[in-house]
Amino acid sequence: MTNRLKADLVETSQFGRTPPKKIESYDQLDPEKGVTRPDGTEENKKIRDYTVARMKEAGLQVKIDKVGNIFGRKEGSRTDKGTVMSGSHLDSVMNGGMFDGVLGVYTALEAVRRISDEDFGNERSLEVVVFTGEEGSAFTPALLGSSVLTGKVSVDEVLNRKNAAGQTLEEVLEKIGYKGSFESSLDNVEYFVETHIEQGPILNKEGISVGVVEGIAGITWILATILGEENHAGTTPMKVRKDALVAAADIVAFAHQRANEMVDKLGSATVATVGKLNVFPSWFTVVPGKVEMGIDIRDVVPKNLESLENEILKAMEDTGQRYGVDIRTEVQHIHVPVTPSAEVVNIIDSSASQVGVTKKRMVSGAGHDAENIAEKVKAGMIFVPSVNGKSHVPLEWTNWEDIENGAKVLTQTLKNLSRL
Amino acid sequence: MTNRLKADLVETSQFGRTPPKKIESYDQLDPEKGVTRPDGTEENKKIRDYTVARMKEAGLQVKIDKVGNIFGRKEGSRTDKGTVMSGSHLDSVMNGGMFDGVLGVYTALEAVRRISDEDFGNERSLEVVVFTGEEGSAFTPALLGSSVLTGKVSVDEVLNRKNAAGQTLEEVLEKIGYKGSFESSLDNVEYFVETHIEQGPILNKEGISVGVVEGIAGITWILATILGEENHAGTTPMKVRKDALVAAADIVAFAHQRANEMVDKLGSATVATVGKLNVFPSWFTVVPGKVEMGIDIRDVVPKNLESLENEILKAMEDTGQRYGVDIRTEVQHIHVPVTPSAEVVNIIDSSASQVGVTKKRMVSGAGHDAENIAEKVKAGMIFVPSVNGKSHVPLEWTNWEDIENGAKVLTQTLKNLSRL
Repeated sequence: MTNRLKADLVETSQFGRTPPKKIESYDQLDPEKGVTRPDGTEENKKIRDYTVARMKEAGLQVKIDKVGNIFGRKEGSRTDKGTVMSGSHLDSVMNGGMFDGVLGVYTALEAVRRISDEDFGNERSLEVVVFTGEEGSAFTPALLGSSVLTGKVSVDEVLNRKNAAGQTLEEVLEKIGYKGSFESSLDNVEYFVETHIEQGPILNKEGISVGVVEGIAGITWILATILGEENHAGTTPMKVRKDALVAAADIVAFAHQRANEMVDKLGSATVATVGKLNVFPSWFTVVPGKVEMGIDIRDVVPKNLESLENEILKAMEDTGQRYGVDIRTEVQHIHVPVTPSAEVVNIIDSSASQVGVTKKRMVSGAGHDAENIAEKVKAGMIFVPSVNGKSHVPLEWTNWEDIENGAKVLTQTLKNLSRL
Repeated sequence: MTNRLKADLVETSQFGRTPPKKIESYDQLDPEKGVTRPDGTEENKKIRDYTVARMKEAGLQVKIDKVGNIFGRKEGSRTDKGTVMSGSHLDSVMNGGMFDGVLGVYTALEAVRRISDEDFGNERSLEVVVFTGEEGSAFTPALLGSSVLTGKVSVDEVLNRKNAAGQTLEEVLEKIGYKGSFESSLDNVEYFVETHIEQGPILNKEGISVGVVEGIAGITWILATILGEENHAGTTPMKVRKDALVAAADIVAFAHQRANEMVDKLGSATVATVGKLNVFPSWFTVVPGKVEMGIDIRDVVPKNLESLENEILKAMEDTGQRYGVDIRTEVQHIHVPVTPSAEVVNIIDSSASQVGVTKKRMVSGAGHDAENIAEKVKAGMIFVPSVNGKSHVPLEWTNWEDIENGAKVLTQTLKNLSRL
């Protein structure tokens, strides 16, 4: 059975890779050459076509909705009960890894195939889903397909989004043959489970096969422009400078220190990152006149996230005054923290015990389609380990035994949910 | 008399400005449009031609050396005594100001003109000098012409330097007609005085017309590459990060704080600037994996400069260990501190008193041709105020009364030196 799932993942690993190359083991990865499959590209069409063929081969009824989301359905015996849905996405970041998204689609397909093979007799219908545009690599924002499904954005709005080449999503979906005619909804869906690579180092480091996600971090972005005074580095005395980078360094240190303190004192999963920082003009002999910075803060506890945001904004105010620089800020609440359904979390957890797979309760720091779906449907996530915590890079890898363990837990979870 | 000097500075202000525009007052400056006259350009030829014409008009014997340095000589009555030389440069940075360098050439020319007009009768010969390639904006390194004069670099080496277009200095000098045939030296020069804009805010802030330079800062550059670990900002816990930017922020703060402490405790003119800082990949959701930074430190006291260099290198080592990042450093000693001739400094000072111009002893934080010449000849510098301390930008400005005061002090200084 493992061979079928592995074969699909090896086969799909070539799509979006230049030149196409199937990867079976970590040492075949090229650190420079990952996969690139934004929605609407020829490579995106190839992996969609391959997946639809596998769904049909497995006896699923396949439907494509208006924004290109793909659904493969195995009818249950109790059509009066809501559907159990599972899946993820097939699009990728530029030069990313082979498992991000794909693993969630293929473990779901494999679970349904095993359920069929065993003649398990699912009461609830099962649906394997492929969401359009999770990564935001062609059409922004990210999580596009699942946002339509929850009604966050309208079908028309999404179809009119343009990629960098100026094409609308509608145009590219028509071009690759994935502009469907029906408007999907979650009205008849009761449960949703997404399997995904952790994209962080915890499971791999601790040698645990499966993470049971009990919280999805909210994300807040603070954008700041620091305006100091550009001056000659040799002739401007220290005491009269308004150095935008010195002020920025203060903020970098503060954000890092506060997040660390919160982890220490609250045992929280708080993270704060000044990932973006650009200095102008960035030359030896010029006191920096301007710095643009972007801070990403995340926590699963709403009040932690809020207080960290406020503390950083306050620190920026203080820093501005201390150094006589003007700090302009803009806050973007990317999304609030999401708590998965306790019922689903418990079922994933007990399913892992049933099939004898090691597991750990954990939080998700990255954004996933499941966080959208969780707003409308009882939803949960299963993580599998990422070797060295790497993701969104060509060296993204998950060991085959962990993938098989993840598939086992998902299969058992879908079985259990389908009989509820 | 002032009108002649002002007229020359207004006339030369158009060369290298697009479109050409003569500037008579601060409010005519366009913050976007400065002057661009790297050596060998058509615009550089124009200002050289204009200057040579003015030298000849003033009765000076004009000679061009092999690297394009221009000398305008007024013979003295005592040819057994060494020459008194004064001047600066006519090349500019890209989109720079109208006074940097030009002021030193034209105040020297004006001083010699006044000395002739008065029939003062200089004993020592006087020479107005224009150095090639002070700014390093076409051919690196900076201070090219004066480096040849002191023998630091050979004529052949300098002539074979190439600009960004791949042309040698020899080619471009031939093209603009400034490839002379004689090899200049400082053998018969006794004294050198350079008038220059301060390029800093001190004189302007304190309302003093002239700075008597008693020290020229040494410059050390520390280049550092910080190698951390690029990771997902959402999924990488705080405790396992190796954030290159957090480490860099530590160093920025340290350099700023230590330089400030030295100023406070030692009353020194120490400056430390992290002017250059580039973060990779510089995006919100990625923990920075690499930072490249450039630190410029300056002081007129050799041991201050040395101890600050060592303290920063030590701090980098500590920071590297604290954050588990690899910090690779390279130190470039751009030049050591230079002490102008006490004799010349005292004569400039007493000359200012003689002509009733307010003055202040100060240090030069920027590099100038005088620092080269001071290695071989008794040399000094006169500073005039820069409005708001601005230089190397289109809004570089010095008020006309300050220019006249600078010219008066230089004229008196050259008179006094010529009779020594």
